[in-house]
Amino acid sequence: MVGLLEQSQPGVNLYELVADRIASMIETGALSSGQRVPSVRKLHMQMAVSISTVLEAYRRLEARGLIEARPQSGFYVRHLRHPTAPEPSHHTPIDAATPVRISDMTLRMTHAARDPSIIPLGAAVSSPALLPMRQITQTMSRLGRLHPRLTHAYDFPPGLEELRSQVARRLIDAGVNVSPSEILTTSGAQEAVALCLQSVTQPGDTVAVESPTFYGLLQLIESLHLKAVEIESHPRDGVKLDALESAIGKHNIRACLFVLNFNNPMGSCMPDDNKRRLVEMLASRDIPLIEDDVYGELVWGAKRPLSAKAFDRKGLVLHCSSFSKTLAPGLRVGWCVPGRFYRDVELRKLATSIATASLPQMTAAEFLATGGYDRHVRRLRRTYAELSQRMTLAIQNYFPNGVRISRPSGGFVLWVEMPEGVDSLRLQSDALASKISIAPGPIFSANHSYRNCMRLNCGLTWTDEIEQAVSTLGALAGRQLE
Amino acid sequence: MVGLLEQSQPGVNLYELVADRIASMIETGALSSGQRVPSVRKLHMQMAVSISTVLEAYRRLEARGLIEARPQSGFYVRHLRHPTAPEPSHHTPIDAATPVRISDMTLRMTHAARDPSIIPLGAAVSSPALLPMRQITQTMSRLGRLHPRLTHAYDFPPGLEELRSQVARRLIDAGVNVSPSEILTTSGAQEAVALCLQSVTQPGDTVAVESPTFYGLLQLIESLHLKAVEIESHPRDGVKLDALESAIGKHNIRACLFVLNFNNPMGSCMPDDNKRRLVEMLASRDIPLIEDDVYGELVWGAKRPLSAKAFDRKGLVLHCSSFSKTLAPGLRVGWCVPGRFYRDVELRKLATSIATASLPQMTAAEFLATGGYDRHVRRLRRTYAELSQRMTLAIQNYFPNGVRISRPSGGFVLWVEMPEGVDSLRLQSDALASKISIAPGPIFSANHSYRNCMRLNCGLTWTDEIEQAVSTLGALAGRQLE
Repeated sequence: MVGLLEQSQPGVNLYELVADRIASMIETGALSSGQRVPSVRKLHMQMAVSISTVLEAYRRLEARGLIEARPQSGFYVRHLRHPTAPEPSHHTPIDAATPVRISDMTLRMTHAARDPSIIPLGAAVSSPALLPMRQITQTMSRLGRLHPRLTHAYDFPPGLEELRSQVARRLIDAGVNVSPSEILTTSGAQEAVALCLQSVTQPGDTVAVESPTFYGLLQLIESLHLKAVEIESHPRDGVKLDALESAIGKHNIRACLFVLNFNNPMGSCMPDDNKRRLVEMLASRDIPLIEDDVYGELVWGAKRPLSAKAFDRKGLVLHCSSFSKTLAPGLRVGWCVPGRFYRDVELRKLATSIATASLPQMTAAEFLATGGYDRHVRRLRRTYAELSQRMTLAIQNYFPNGVRISRPSGGFVLWVEMPEGVDSLRLQSDALASKISIAPGPIFSANHSYRNCMRLNCGLTWTDEIEQAVSTLGALAGRQLE
Repeated sequence: MVGLLEQSQPGVNLYELVADRIASMIETGALSSGQRVPSVRKLHMQMAVSISTVLEAYRRLEARGLIEARPQSGFYVRHLRHPTAPEPSHHTPIDAATPVRISDMTLRMTHAARDPSIIPLGAAVSSPALLPMRQITQTMSRLGRLHPRLTHAYDFPPGLEELRSQVARRLIDAGVNVSPSEILTTSGAQEAVALCLQSVTQPGDTVAVESPTFYGLLQLIESLHLKAVEIESHPRDGVKLDALESAIGKHNIRACLFVLNFNNPMGSCMPDDNKRRLVEMLASRDIPLIEDDVYGELVWGAKRPLSAKAFDRKGLVLHCSSFSKTLAPGLRVGWCVPGRFYRDVELRKLATSIATASLPQMTAAEFLATGGYDRHVRRLRRTYAELSQRMTLAIQNYFPNGVRISRPSGGFVLWVEMPEGVDSLRLQSDALASKISIAPGPIFSANHSYRNCMRLNCGLTWTDEIEQAVSTLGALAGRQLE
């Protein structure tokens, strides 16, 4: 029997819609822990959807860990539904501009990433099944046949027009209104950030970063002979503006380099109003802000947070992003909107890699243009939300008492703070021996802080193997406390 | 009618085979200037190939500039004179370490390169028809279907094993015996050079370059806040070792950055024995040598010149190259063999672009492994030799008296020295107004020398349009002398 809602909205995944409705009732407390959720028949009548749609919705909620089936009785809100572990504790970073030395520590991680037998809880990559590999490959083949010249020519900066147009359209969602001529394409977001950072600094300059911050940004600071100042950051709201203001007064900060939306590793998302204040504060001092927004699209809720670029009036915000977290890391396609530094970034792109491969750029542009992208990203957001929930519950379950876990609202990594006695570098070694990788806390800090913290990847399809890996990690951490 | 040869060798491009046979008769003098080549019918019988194959072969030879059709009469060997123009004159560069500022001048060229209506005599790119676009595209499609994960995963440094193995094999031709584990793959040679140069210098350091030298290397020096010293170079033998030795004595040179084989723009090729002395001289002073060997494979004669890396005993030579000049610029696949700086270069690759796209790497590896590469490169060498010959004759023909032209033995660019009164930057403007690009002399020099010189591209299939473009350039240069 087809419900009314199905008839009025053909093609929409109604079970997702129903599941989201129930999930929001649980989140708001309208349905409380242990309470029976509405029966299948009742919801079928109330929401005018078919029985099978309701059943599928309940199966999704079960997979997200929100409800559980009790034999002969129906579905109930799980007792463990809310994370009970507290959020990471307050951390005041060392207030000093320091040269960075973390590269050696990260090599161990990337080497582990090359070994397929290792469970990549240390990486920030998702399971192949979650990304549209096959569509991407088919699109690339088709375009290659249609336009063989795409593999022939150097696509000099600013890069493929078709892609820049599509990126300009998508940026409207992030509150950014720019023309394609203000965009430059790059080999991934990392190259974009590298070019932008070189354009706004001179060797020896000091750059402000979040604390903790993505180790790739620290490596970049290290390789460009810059210094980093870590700015105190709130686990959910990101950089503390007063801490930043005071650091600016004390250090000669020449640029800020932030991941404002679903920060890697903490998962914090700076409220849009704070972003406005941040941009204004920096503009009044003529300090450029480079934002790495690779996770911005991966919001779990309905509304994508804005980009800081949305508030930029002086061309001082350099927005960088890519398709590595949403489409395919192996495409190596990213972009930047470098504002008043456009010409300099363009020249640097030419000097450091001449051109970005054209066929992958065209492939991404085509995928965006034909609409498959939106549908795919909506699904991905829900999946990451569910997987992160599963991971949170597993950590609570298997880790020693006192563990603290971040509560992001987007992206797919968690920041885990273990009791003081746990050394995450030692945990990394022990875990690798058990064929599990983790990202140890100190690589996320110029001062090698966060010794008892680590970042875990929630981008992997949940399996018994993953569950077992978390259990092993918990046991290894516990052993350090004995 | 299908000929016997077609039947016995299905799938082989027979017209290429026939064209090569005739070309070699012209080269050896078996067919001399002005002589009628065998009639289509005669060759059809002699070589057991179809009439249409012979016609296509003759069309190819015409495009290479070797023969010409005379109405109602048949095909004749063109009057190919030997170059009579002298080689570029002796130039003693300014003996000073100078910060570089050439980027602005080069933007004009890359913007011109994006306009398909402009004849790209200023670029160093070949006609699409000369490169195996279709095979590359087909290989990429096939591999994409077989291994969809290639577009999914980050291929962390050192890069794709299959490609590193193939590169190791090919390097034997250049006298370089290394294992795949000594090779790192990159996004083209420019990225390889950029990473290597960062690894062996600190900002402010002085780097020795040839005079003239590829502007891309100067841009890199500029963007890394380094200084350049131009070393006196011989038009055919490259860097003068005594000049280098004296510069080392005077300036605190921290690295050499040379294009030893078929230097761009001069076309010089350092004799292998000089390379040995160069490597020894630098080794005794612990100065690293970065060699950009992208043209090494494009020797016109039988024997590929050695790489300087062949003489490296101390791990001080950093060898860089790519497939951009031999296979497909748009693939963006290159590599380096950074010797004792391996680990540092690996870390920098991670920091500045994380990974090189996997599918293009696998495509190049497959093309090398299946043997199509060797056949293709042999043909390319002959074609570039012929096209450069055509260009030389056209320049002699159309340019004012006193023009001097380089006489390379590989690659596909020519260095043209015009009489003193000609300003190549003005010529560049005038030429662009006529929809022709050139590469003006000053962009090849840290000191903006070579005002009356330019580099011309010989990678384009010879057409009346190209001939006309050279004629226009000659007239524009002549006008400056009036």
